[in-house]
Amino acid sequence: MELWFTEKQTPEFGITAKIRETLVTEKTEYQDLALIDTEEFGRMLVLDGMVMTTVKDEFVYHEMAAHPALVTHPDPKQVLVVGGGDGGVIREVIKHPQVEKAVLAEIDGKVIAYSKQYLPEIAGQLDHPRVDVQVGDGYMHIIQSKDKYDVIIVDSTEPVGPAAPLFERGFYQGIHEALKEDGIFVAQTDNPWFKADLIQKVNRDVKDIFPIVRVYGANIPTYPSGLWTFTMGSKKYDPLEVEEASVPELDTRYYTPRLHRAAFVLPRFVEDLLK
Amino acid sequence: MELWFTEKQTPEFGITAKIRETLVTEKTEYQDLALIDTEEFGRMLVLDGMVMTTVKDEFVYHEMAAHPALVTHPDPKQVLVVGGGDGGVIREVIKHPQVEKAVLAEIDGKVIAYSKQYLPEIAGQLDHPRVDVQVGDGYMHIIQSKDKYDVIIVDSTEPVGPAAPLFERGFYQGIHEALKEDGIFVAQTDNPWFKADLIQKVNRDVKDIFPIVRVYGANIPTYPSGLWTFTMGSKKYDPLEVEEASVPELDTRYYTPRLHRAAFVLPRFVEDLLK
Repeated sequence: MELWFTEKQTPEFGITAKIRETLVTEKTEYQDLALIDTEEFGRMLVLDGMVMTTVKDEFVYHEMAAHPALVTHPDPKQVLVVGGGDGGVIREVIKHPQVEKAVLAEIDGKVIAYSKQYLPEIAGQLDHPRVDVQVGDGYMHIIQSKDKYDVIIVDSTEPVGPAAPLFERGFYQGIHEALKEDGIFVAQTDNPWFKADLIQKVNRDVKDIFPIVRVYGANIPTYPSGLWTFTMGSKKYDPLEVEEASVPELDTRYYTPRLHRAAFVLPRFVEDLLK
Repeated sequence: MELWFTEKQTPEFGITAKIRETLVTEKTEYQDLALIDTEEFGRMLVLDGMVMTTVKDEFVYHEMAAHPALVTHPDPKQVLVVGGGDGGVIREVIKHPQVEKAVLAEIDGKVIAYSKQYLPEIAGQLDHPRVDVQVGDGYMHIIQSKDKYDVIIVDSTEPVGPAAPLFERGFYQGIHEALKEDGIFVAQTDNPWFKADLIQKVNRDVKDIFPIVRVYGANIPTYPSGLWTFTMGSKKYDPLEVEEASVPELDTRYYTPRLHRAAFVLPRFVEDLLK
């Protein structure tokens, strides 16, 4: 008997992966959570039916969520990750020695607990002494923080369910206030093939609030369309002014000094979305 | 009743697309051919169960197969496309006014005929006066051509079935001889997530024959992993020495002057494959 997991990435298109073993299926307080061991991508975290991360390709998302902003900021001491309970972004954040404290604000404690249990390659740094894990509402954490962070990374699910408020204009205003005067934030902003409207809306909202707004892409095989975007809003520093020679050589599998600026060069149809 | 087309991109992973209408299913002399109208990607050409092109995302592959080499060569007059019976690469080739003649050598006349009938947006330039369509074996065409072409583009299927010889070392040697003394060729070389061995093998073979070898990538949602690679072998001109300001503004939806060099900046795990 063969068991396959299928995610409908749109109502009319999906990916399908052969299952080796189903480890967890649970309705948490916030969402449907599954941990599946797949033949092609290894262990896979699924929330509300959507692939969040897999052992085989997780490094792309986690590196590309963390390093472009942390390299652009000259001295990122205080960092906040909103969401990201699997711990992958945190693992990348603490590769930067200037980071004194990395706070994780994840609403669903079950995501953290199961990631620690089943995804140790990803979640293994959540107990690091420079990491402060706070189980709670990231939106509230943002609203209650003023002039506090150098870098904020929004590692949310899609804008349905618990993450919906994290795509509202008011949230970006809150982020602006939670950042120091030279702070930078970055958010995952889905893909341009199926969610062009979302990318456009976030781009407009962030441009109203931050003087420097840049969008970059990364190839993630298990995410819809394989081309994922991130939107960066910055008060002072421009990622495109970072010289390749000044980018530190980090222990990475995707991000490189050469890729830092190249990732911001987008296909014409994506450039056109952002005009 | 819902009908879905599923391509197993590996034995354990695939994509699945809801079908609006099945237009053609036929066993040609060379392969299984299907033309399906899908809800998400529009009409789709499928050969031996593998998606070759779709109306929604075809522009990425066709532009990226054609323009980097044609822009790198300062005066591409004689161009050969091996395979590519859907006509998409030819459509891009003739956007370059210097091209005097674009020869298409496609082994399967049925691909050409059905593409003209069902994919006119893609195949519509096959009757252009500067295009010479030859139904026949591309390998033999290469072997019989000496010092003839400025640019050769290999638009093949995967290295199974009729396209298998197009990934052999002897084929690249034949291409070298079919090119003029300053010629350039480019071939599609699959994806680095599932076919790393193939990319490595082609890279080694081409490096033995051509002094300049470069690999670049493009995001194609319906191709395995969403990250497709192309390998370019050049006798004289280096695509990385092309200045952005000298790239013509073509009528494209993916390729841009800005992307010309950025497409060659690869993730670290792909760089490592090519060492």
